[in-house]
Amino acid sequence: MSLKLNTKYVESFLPEDSLNGIRPEVEKAHESLCSGTGEGSSFTGWLTLPETYDRDEFSRIKAAAAKIKKDSDVLLVIGIGGSYLGARAVIEFIKSQNYNLLRKGAPEIYFTGNSISSASINELIEILGDKDFSINVISKSGTTTEPAVAFRIFRELLVKKYGEAEAARRIYATTDGSRGTLKELSDLKGYTTFVVPDNVGGRYSVLTPVGLLPIATACIDIDALMEGAREAMHDLSERDVCRNDCCRYAAIRNLLYRSGKKIEMLVSYEPAFTMMNEWFKQLFGESEGKGGKGLMPASAIFSTDLHSIGQYIQQGERDLFETVVIFNEPKSDITIDLEENDYDGLNFLAGKKLSYVNSKAFEGTVLAHTDGNVPNIILEAERMDEHNLGYLIYFFEKSCAVSGYILGINPFNQPGVESYKKNMFALLGKPGYDDRKDELEKRLGIR
Amino acid sequence: MSLKLNTKYVESFLPEDSLNGIRPEVEKAHESLCSGTGEGSSFTGWLTLPETYDRDEFSRIKAAAAKIKKDSDVLLVIGIGGSYLGARAVIEFIKSQNYNLLRKGAPEIYFTGNSISSASINELIEILGDKDFSINVISKSGTTTEPAVAFRIFRELLVKKYGEAEAARRIYATTDGSRGTLKELSDLKGYTTFVVPDNVGGRYSVLTPVGLLPIATACIDIDALMEGAREAMHDLSERDVCRNDCCRYAAIRNLLYRSGKKIEMLVSYEPAFTMMNEWFKQLFGESEGKGGKGLMPASAIFSTDLHSIGQYIQQGERDLFETVVIFNEPKSDITIDLEENDYDGLNFLAGKKLSYVNSKAFEGTVLAHTDGNVPNIILEAERMDEHNLGYLIYFFEKSCAVSGYILGINPFNQPGVESYKKNMFALLGKPGYDDRKDELEKRLGIR
Repeated sequence: MSLKLNTKYVESFLPEDSLNGIRPEVEKAHESLCSGTGEGSSFTGWLTLPETYDRDEFSRIKAAAAKIKKDSDVLLVIGIGGSYLGARAVIEFIKSQNYNLLRKGAPEIYFTGNSISSASINELIEILGDKDFSINVISKSGTTTEPAVAFRIFRELLVKKYGEAEAARRIYATTDGSRGTLKELSDLKGYTTFVVPDNVGGRYSVLTPVGLLPIATACIDIDALMEGAREAMHDLSERDVCRNDCCRYAAIRNLLYRSGKKIEMLVSYEPAFTMMNEWFKQLFGESEGKGGKGLMPASAIFSTDLHSIGQYIQQGERDLFETVVIFNEPKSDITIDLEENDYDGLNFLAGKKLSYVNSKAFEGTVLAHTDGNVPNIILEAERMDEHNLGYLIYFFEKSCAVSGYILGINPFNQPGVESYKKNMFALLGKPGYDDRKDELEKRLGIR
Repeated sequence: MSLKLNTKYVESFLPEDSLNGIRPEVEKAHESLCSGTGEGSSFTGWLTLPETYDRDEFSRIKAAAAKIKKDSDVLLVIGIGGSYLGARAVIEFIKSQNYNLLRKGAPEIYFTGNSISSASINELIEILGDKDFSINVISKSGTTTEPAVAFRIFRELLVKKYGEAEAARRIYATTDGSRGTLKELSDLKGYTTFVVPDNVGGRYSVLTPVGLLPIATACIDIDALMEGAREAMHDLSERDVCRNDCCRYAAIRNLLYRSGKKIEMLVSYEPAFTMMNEWFKQLFGESEGKGGKGLMPASAIFSTDLHSIGQYIQQGERDLFETVVIFNEPKSDITIDLEENDYDGLNFLAGKKLSYVNSKAFEGTVLAHTDGNVPNIILEAERMDEHNLGYLIYFFEKSCAVSGYILGINPFNQPGVESYKKNMFALLGKPGYDDRKDELEKRLGIR
């Protein structure tokens, strides 16, 4: 088992016998999920994906990555939300937050089309300069505004640089299998296409071509990633929920929520986990934030943020708990040397490895925070590699689904995000939406 | 006035006449702060700093930055918490999140000594390679573990590369004016030193040498930064709290907190604001998280996170509010071109600037979120430049102090962060702390 759930620092915070008490709900939630009878079950393709993924497409992904590595200095990844976060999270964790400064034998990778900031796009155009590049545009519909705008801009640059024919050979579209404007354009122009499966929503899609093409281009072992997810799939299919860690985690989260906790803070002691934190917040926040319910997902990197939000965690409102992801083996290590004169007083650490100090920071903090009445759920992984990460990704995806069912919501839709979009389209005068333009402008006081 | 507080989208959420009702508390808080009679008042030097800062030291900062630009390809900035966040936030906002890939005529700048991750340090050693470098080590005491460890490692590399004499000329220590291990070492070795003022705490120190040396090295106009802060200082010294925007903001935050809000989410529509978000979370979280009280600071970048946490904001628990920072003028702009075939359906935007679309995203979102019962406080700034940023920084610093006094806590200390440190030192067997080692190890089950 590549991931171990340690409940030692949270059990005392749970009402007596509450884990037993919630068991029927957990069993029902797990059963609904596995049998495909729960709400939104048409979006649970990710459950079996580590076994059933399209092997041919997987090979084509690797071939595409190889071609990009060969003919491009830069890969632009255009996508927003689930269509970019997972890839960026995996690349930064496995490789580096400074991937573009450190990569060898692989192109630079930049993520764009994930905001409406002109400065961001202009900067990227400057960074791109004269370099050879390819584009991976990721959008199921093809019409989501941010990636559509970025694709329009960068496709134009690509065509200007290479002409239509060669540009078409440098565009990889990850989109719907049969419908939508991006699929139509891709078929028309002859872009290489990959499929966003109909039965996998954006925030659950990192282990589909959505994530895998950028990840493979960064020279990350996507076979190992899928193997880790497959191991998790098998471990977490356990029907006895008391021995199924994703069910136990889902149960505990819900018990803490029912006991009055409002915020779950995901914590890592590795800065490279920063975008995994963001991926987690979308996964849980977008899945569970419905009907006025749900834990607010927050995140931190320690020990960095112990010097920033640490005071609040220790002594602020007592309505949060921490879920700490620990990796037992560091990627690399450093030994603290002895210094002749002990100016900084650190010689007591001489000969010790930095990972040892980091682990003592974790141990000291888990005791301090639990003493301060902050429950701590610990997830222990082994190595910071593809296998362990694939396992962790699947673990979180399945935990989130079970947790959402226990909460009593549909974990697989996101109806709330339409509100701002409809308003924005109305204000932009988009055909089909502009009937509300006047009304909204009045409310804004610009009419 | 470089910053405008717009309360149009929050007023309806405040109980009737509550702003009037809280006025005496706000007046008292503002008065205590300005007269130096409130709790922790020995740490309010930042209040008058934009007028009273040491002009000689300011010139020395510029001279040091000029020297670093001349003799170094890389500046390593070693510090944690308030000793690094502000500098990083200002550099990324004024220059770029991709500063190191885009900078011209200025050294690369890397921040280290802000975690205990060996991978992060090893990566930096690899990035450093053979380049000429200098070190700015920022630590009032000189003994904070993370920067002390990093300084030990990188000082050794510097000495190995240049020898003791030249290495000493490449180390800039920002530390206590007279005491502490770093000050002692600096005087012994002849490092250039700058002063962390006794009366300015870490999270309030970005406009002291703590932030200014790295910022100046990045070719940012620190005169303009201070001027913006000075303008804020004058505007926000207004004694009539109803006409003092930092007092109004502080009042509204407290009213929302008293009405049951638990979380304040700072929002920006510019990805370059990401580290300013982190700076804000330390400022408010570490200042107010005391006595079991205080709003939990969270943050988001839109429209990016509308596709991630947006669902939760729209339909999750109704215990949050948003504070949105808007910049009216973008750094640069892009016009969306007309395309012959309107594949992506974006031709309705042809001829429009991307900043226009971004502003409609803001307007559409503020209406959607307030319709969803999320109060929105709007802060409108003009340009994304040094002057406006300096103003915003001072605004937040003073708002936070006033808000903390209204909340009834001391905004200027951080006693809670000692808990984990004592535990960590005990577990590491640090002399003076190791009497608790056995007890803690028993609790951890490793003894």
